[in-house]
Amino acid sequence: MTARYDIDGLKARLPGVRIEDNPALVRQKSRDFFWYSPRLKRELDGVTGDVVAVPASEAEVIEILKAAYALGIPVTPRGTGTGNYGQAMPLSGGIVLDLSRMNAVKEITPGKVVAEPGAILAKIDRQTRPHSGQEIRMHPSTYATASIGGFVAGGSGGVGSIRWGGLRDAGNVISLKVVTMEESPRVLTLAGDDIHKVSHAYGTNGIITEVAMALGPAYDWIDLLVGFADFGAAAAYANALGEQDGLLLKEVAVVAAPVPHDTFLRHQRFLPRDRHVVIVMVATHALDAMLAFTGRFRGAEIPFRQDALAPEDLRGLPPVYELAWNHTTLRALRADPAITYLQVLYPFPDQFALVERLHARFGADEVKAHLEFVRFDGKITCFGLPLVRFTTEDRLEEIMRIHEDMGAPIFNPHRYTLEEGGMKQTDAVQLAFKREADPRGLLNPGKMIAWDDPDYDYASGKTYLFPGLAARDAAA
Amino acid sequence: MTARYDIDGLKARLPGVRIEDNPALVRQKSRDFFWYSPRLKRELDGVTGDVVAVPASEAEVIEILKAAYALGIPVTPRGTGTGNYGQAMPLSGGIVLDLSRMNAVKEITPGKVVAEPGAILAKIDRQTRPHSGQEIRMHPSTYATASIGGFVAGGSGGVGSIRWGGLRDAGNVISLKVVTMEESPRVLTLAGDDIHKVSHAYGTNGIITEVAMALGPAYDWIDLLVGFADFGAAAAYANALGEQDGLLLKEVAVVAAPVPHDTFLRHQRFLPRDRHVVIVMVATHALDAMLAFTGRFRGAEIPFRQDALAPEDLRGLPPVYELAWNHTTLRALRADPAITYLQVLYPFPDQFALVERLHARFGADEVKAHLEFVRFDGKITCFGLPLVRFTTEDRLEEIMRIHEDMGAPIFNPHRYTLEEGGMKQTDAVQLAFKREADPRGLLNPGKMIAWDDPDYDYASGKTYLFPGLAARDAAA
Repeated sequence: MTARYDIDGLKARLPGVRIEDNPALVRQKSRDFFWYSPRLKRELDGVTGDVVAVPASEAEVIEILKAAYALGIPVTPRGTGTGNYGQAMPLSGGIVLDLSRMNAVKEITPGKVVAEPGAILAKIDRQTRPHSGQEIRMHPSTYATASIGGFVAGGSGGVGSIRWGGLRDAGNVISLKVVTMEESPRVLTLAGDDIHKVSHAYGTNGIITEVAMALGPAYDWIDLLVGFADFGAAAAYANALGEQDGLLLKEVAVVAAPVPHDTFLRHQRFLPRDRHVVIVMVATHALDAMLAFTGRFRGAEIPFRQDALAPEDLRGLPPVYELAWNHTTLRALRADPAITYLQVLYPFPDQFALVERLHARFGADEVKAHLEFVRFDGKITCFGLPLVRFTTEDRLEEIMRIHEDMGAPIFNPHRYTLEEGGMKQTDAVQLAFKREADPRGLLNPGKMIAWDDPDYDYASGKTYLFPGLAARDAAA
Repeated sequence: MTARYDIDGLKARLPGVRIEDNPALVRQKSRDFFWYSPRLKRELDGVTGDVVAVPASEAEVIEILKAAYALGIPVTPRGTGTGNYGQAMPLSGGIVLDLSRMNAVKEITPGKVVAEPGAILAKIDRQTRPHSGQEIRMHPSTYATASIGGFVAGGSGGVGSIRWGGLRDAGNVISLKVVTMEESPRVLTLAGDDIHKVSHAYGTNGIITEVAMALGPAYDWIDLLVGFADFGAAAAYANALGEQDGLLLKEVAVVAAPVPHDTFLRHQRFLPRDRHVVIVMVATHALDAMLAFTGRFRGAEIPFRQDALAPEDLRGLPPVYELAWNHTTLRALRADPAITYLQVLYPFPDQFALVERLHARFGADEVKAHLEFVRFDGKITCFGLPLVRFTTEDRLEEIMRIHEDMGAPIFNPHRYTLEEGGMKQTDAVQLAFKREADPRGLLNPGKMIAWDDPDYDYASGKTYLFPGLAARDAAA
């Protein structure tokens, strides 16, 4: 496979740049959490790059892209590889562009941080908090390890979205600097609606070298788990809690019994097996109001309150955001390797009816409910990351089709392309920008169907298979 | 009238307390902005207290209440008198309790300020901003002059409610200290749902001596006026802007043409007479995103942008929040003394249809639209403070009845009682607390119908007339 590209020529052109070619290391840096999906696990397990380039600066990024462009070598950018859809995996081999060394926090002002793409989210907050009592508005459950560039390039929201909405929402990402993949790479600054050209584009049409992101006020967040005997009551409470505009919350999720007891192992002693659990993070100064509000709900119990426990009882417990979003999936997977998951939107205002109908349709053995409440277009509703007992890929497809038929859009986490994981249609803005910024199609090949196959029929019911992967499979 | 109460005895019992009895001063301190309403102007113009007591501390409040209780003298608390419904006017005379000297900011912590009731909102922010980059989450348009105690006792929300909801929402007021009106006054701290016992109760059931309120992050807010030729387009834009969860806004209002041009005199040169105007305050770091979002709306013009003007062009211009809420009314009233107003809720999700139907019903000559967008139970909707060309009290009543019949609840600003200005029913929690905290009924008499006339029929279509006022009118 390495024979495909002139790697020696690449190295010769980049004498000052750190290039790794140890195959074990390259393979490790060519992977993400794609194995959450049994299908992606089958499809992508053999994917690896040829080398890893580790730039220390934007100037080195430019050098690398210039050399790669000249030699026709694909470049797939990567933060820390915490994604779940193979978005940072080099389907055509070539260069894995590891941006982890570019991790400086460059500027902190009221409401805004400017950072290099490799900066880890939690580490950014460790600077913004003491600087001016500010923090990143939202983060994935991989807060401790995910980079800001990877989050913008492949994420959608997470912890904090109950207050601020998602990354796609105006005002959350303020501006991006991107380097183009051309003979003479350009550095562009994108702000306003231009951000959408490269946000959530998996690095297919530009390499993000700087992110300016909105900050919110930083507080001490208190973790709580609220228990209910009835799932519908738990969901109604979570939604109503989210609708309290004056209550500063950072996370509201519902996980159906018995998942919390069975898989939140370090919190297990707090959680009766028959209790559906609402995961809540609330600011210290909002705790009284949150408890008063909770007291209005019949049947609400609070089996876990971080502020009411002694330090020795808290020792070893993960923060509750590491029970939420895809950490819920991770914990369930660890407890039972046959588990996989979906990503569902239950649109406002029918979220409860939809959740109820869908879960009644499948039964709690095959699909277990996990709801993440968010602000979405100005209203509270929920995404679902239901846990699915995997049997066959066909059945998984069928479960997703039934969701869509019943009115709940699926963001398919069992696909590596932007389109199949998203809106099942061409993103004309991203495609147009790729034509401009990556004319040879060398950035993260295979992830944007619209580039490789402009006539692809998303309604065909088939799965897109990137020719590069097909060729590899044929050669294997 | 002074003969009713033993004022000399009161003074004798309070040798260390500042008591004012100059009739002109007492009359001045017995008034608020009740004259916005032609009806309240007629009913309340003669109201005055007997003396003004100006305590310097909670200990002096206790002394005053103890003495007043012993002598049977009513006590009506007052901040700076910026209310509009006579809420701080002493219908039975007696003591006006002027809390303006109790204006200390006692504590600032992340997300919270603790202040005495007389602290002016803008002055609080002048301490919280340099202290830790924080500010009061919401304020009335009388930010520069209103006190925090008066806001909590008589307000409902305002500038900032587009992000944080209203004062009634859990988490916005954190706790209150109140002194009871008993033989031996007690000092109680109310938190959680107990706050509702005395918030928005006009001081009828306890004297607030300390307010703990939530703070939000402080930013430099940029004032903008966005113009539209079409009113419906302006309202749709305002609502959609408010629904942008990631955009930090502090104010979104719509004022129908030609009111902005005709009454926002110092901004007049920016405002064509035929333009409906959306009043916006946006944080500096959200400006780009706000402008990009605005660019998606056909027909949106930005005739006024604070950040695009030179200092000499800004000189003398009031902040745009002083064009909004009841400052809109004030400016319209100044331009035309025949103008009065209503307070309307257009409930989600029918706000646009309701606004359109109501304004079509009355015509733009009699009722001019003024919409204030807010978060309300987790959704964006709008209140209305429409400007009404006043003809007769009967017609004003009819206009309000038509609103209610068409599905838009009225918070009647032409009544001085809590119930008639609010939900037209007894607030059992506030009534029960009054029984406990003011057993002789000496606090702000005449404002809580449920106390004076437990059997009052709110559906009668009549206006409640406080017996104390009726007696005064008979004697006059």
